[in-house]
Amino acid sequence: MSVIANTPYFSVIFTSTRTDGDHGYDEMAKRMVELAEQQSVFLGVESARENVGITVSYWADLESIKNWKANTEHLTAQKIGRKFWYDSFKVRILKVERDYGI
Amino acid sequence: MSVIANTPYFSVIFTSTRTDGDHGYDEMAKRMVELAEQQSVFLGVESARENVGITVSYWADLESIKNWKANTEHLTAQKIGRKFWYDSFKVRILKVERDYGI
Repeated sequence: MSVIANTPYFSVIFTSTRTDGDHGYDEMAKRMVELAEQQSVFLGVESARENVGITVSYWADLESIKNWKANTEHLTAQKIGRKFWYDSFKVRILKVERDYGI
Repeated sequence: MSVIANTPYFSVIFTSTRTDGDHGYDEMAKRMVELAEQQSVFLGVESARENVGITVSYWADLESIKNWKANTEHLTAQKIGRKFWYDSFKVRILKVERDYGI
């Protein structure tokens, strides 16, 4: 709710189901948020997990999403994630057409 | 993760923080999923709540999102939501540019 940007801006929805156990996940998840926040065009992130985990991050343009995907430290996290943390996951790249709220 | 559609398709991200107490929320939330599933162009929904609640629904086109927003029973839920259930909320309408996963 704290994210403010003029449309259009862009979003990544990451949905996942976890494997059992932590396997370093919590520490890496915190580090990834910290690292994403250092990217100049990063607008914000919101995250919640119950049966499914949903993380939505917001970005100023598609180029910055591409750069974030290719970030060296993030690539390492992606590799570990595929191997240890996720039973399944889906990444969606989206364009925010409009938004409103209170 | 169970949602399968060819891109482009469309998405609504609803993020919210709740007021204290239920006030009929759980029952209405279930009913809204049931009602959305009856819409012919509804592709699916994923939802999780921790500090923030995130509900992501998927739709075949923008017209169907507009129709869902204007659905009579859904309008009632929106009114009650603004008054009783949410401290704050944000609705984002998005176009899914691409997706991938395992």
